[in-house]
Amino acid sequence: MAGKPPGKVFGVGTGPGDPDLLTLKAVKALNGADVLAFFAKRGARGNGRTIVEAHVRADILELPLVYPVTVEEDKESDSYKRAIDGFFDESAARIALHLQAGRNVAVLSEGDPLFYGSYMHLHLRLAPHFPAEVIPGVTAMSGCWSLAGLPLVQGDDILSVLPGTLAEEVLVTRLAGTDGAVIMKVGRNLPKIRRALEAVGKLDGAIYVERGTMPTGAVMPLGDHDGSPAPYFSLVLVPGWKGRPQGSLA
Amino acid sequence: MAGKPPGKVFGVGTGPGDPDLLTLKAVKALNGADVLAFFAKRGARGNGRTIVEAHVRADILELPLVYPVTVEEDKESDSYKRAIDGFFDESAARIALHLQAGRNVAVLSEGDPLFYGSYMHLHLRLAPHFPAEVIPGVTAMSGCWSLAGLPLVQGDDILSVLPGTLAEEVLVTRLAGTDGAVIMKVGRNLPKIRRALEAVGKLDGAIYVERGTMPTGAVMPLGDHDGSPAPYFSLVLVPGWKGRPQGSLA
Repeated sequence: MAGKPPGKVFGVGTGPGDPDLLTLKAVKALNGADVLAFFAKRGARGNGRTIVEAHVRADILELPLVYPVTVEEDKESDSYKRAIDGFFDESAARIALHLQAGRNVAVLSEGDPLFYGSYMHLHLRLAPHFPAEVIPGVTAMSGCWSLAGLPLVQGDDILSVLPGTLAEEVLVTRLAGTDGAVIMKVGRNLPKIRRALEAVGKLDGAIYVERGTMPTGAVMPLGDHDGSPAPYFSLVLVPGWKGRPQGSLA
Repeated sequence: MAGKPPGKVFGVGTGPGDPDLLTLKAVKALNGADVLAFFAKRGARGNGRTIVEAHVRADILELPLVYPVTVEEDKESDSYKRAIDGFFDESAARIALHLQAGRNVAVLSEGDPLFYGSYMHLHLRLAPHFPAEVIPGVTAMSGCWSLAGLPLVQGDDILSVLPGTLAEEVLVTRLAGTDGAVIMKVGRNLPKIRRALEAVGKLDGAIYVERGTMPTGAVMPLGDHDGSPAPYFSLVLVPGWKGRPQGSLA
């Protein structure tokens, strides 16, 4: 008896949080999938799974991939690297079993799958061996600057996406050499980010967005923030667009 | 007689080209709009308008905004700046008339409206005076790296979005100081971009994507490209992700 052809794995970008920011293509992939895989922290459901709730068929097979470690751990440590690599190996193997059995697997990825997403670790392991398709999504940063109504870059502007974990002097250099910037992983790095922006004269105009794509979100000038630790899901937006008409935004 | 409340203007991101990459929210905005505004070159229909074709109601009022100038003109010249500013003023005024009459206006923007899009010029002029909402979209760069299956940035990587119009020495500096990069506006700048990548040892691994989000798209290693002028809608992707497992992608 000939084996069934293998299934296809889809990396499905769920967008930044609002279920209406799913693409039509993502919804079609969910409708056609036999297995729904998603990353989740221990004891939690996972934001991606929450976003797609309205599109999950009752008969779909759910495959939660539960992180063995937390974001608070030192990511440069050998024990962290071993644990997370083993987790991605094991997750890819679990998905491969379904693909070999001819089942299509949708793997959820918040935002855009190949932009700072966990899905890429599975893609690297699965795409050489199985049919694979990446369905791009709206990134969290697009969700945030749209909520803020803040145009970020135009024309020949340079945009830099910077992790707030960078050393202060590196942040200063990178912020000086760019037009627009998005600073991610703000959290406890907020005071450092603020000093770096002040050093290059870009604190004025910088906008702080907290949980920008969730109903509890907040937008404020960074200069008005009291400096208390920010949640992990917060961003700082630094507008570029040198030739922008002054004072025309409310 | 009291006036009608004003209409709302929506900046609607259409995504990179595949009509299935429209978001559910974009489709809802199109369904609820009285007026459909879109940018177009003289004699052409506009990519945005083509992308949304399946969602345009027969009774919607179409408002094409036809650029007075072409992309080939010198954008630093005073005559260009006067022409394009006047065009955005006039376009905003035309939309304002509909908003004042209580009509909702959807303005199409390819990709994401506030990321190198023309819509932001209208947003600056209209949002201080009328209800306005930006509906983010999938960017062209996300569409391209998803098609290429190329993970771009991970963890604490820096991503730089660079216009290919930058001077060669600036490109070299910016490419040396980043992890991942997206180079836009490739066109006639391709040989310069290639030299800059070679200078910083990043030509290997760089991927050239031509019309990545259209049916006629092509993906190839930049090193294999023959150096002939590239179309305007092409990108060069430079992967970051330092710790990436080697050789695991086909």
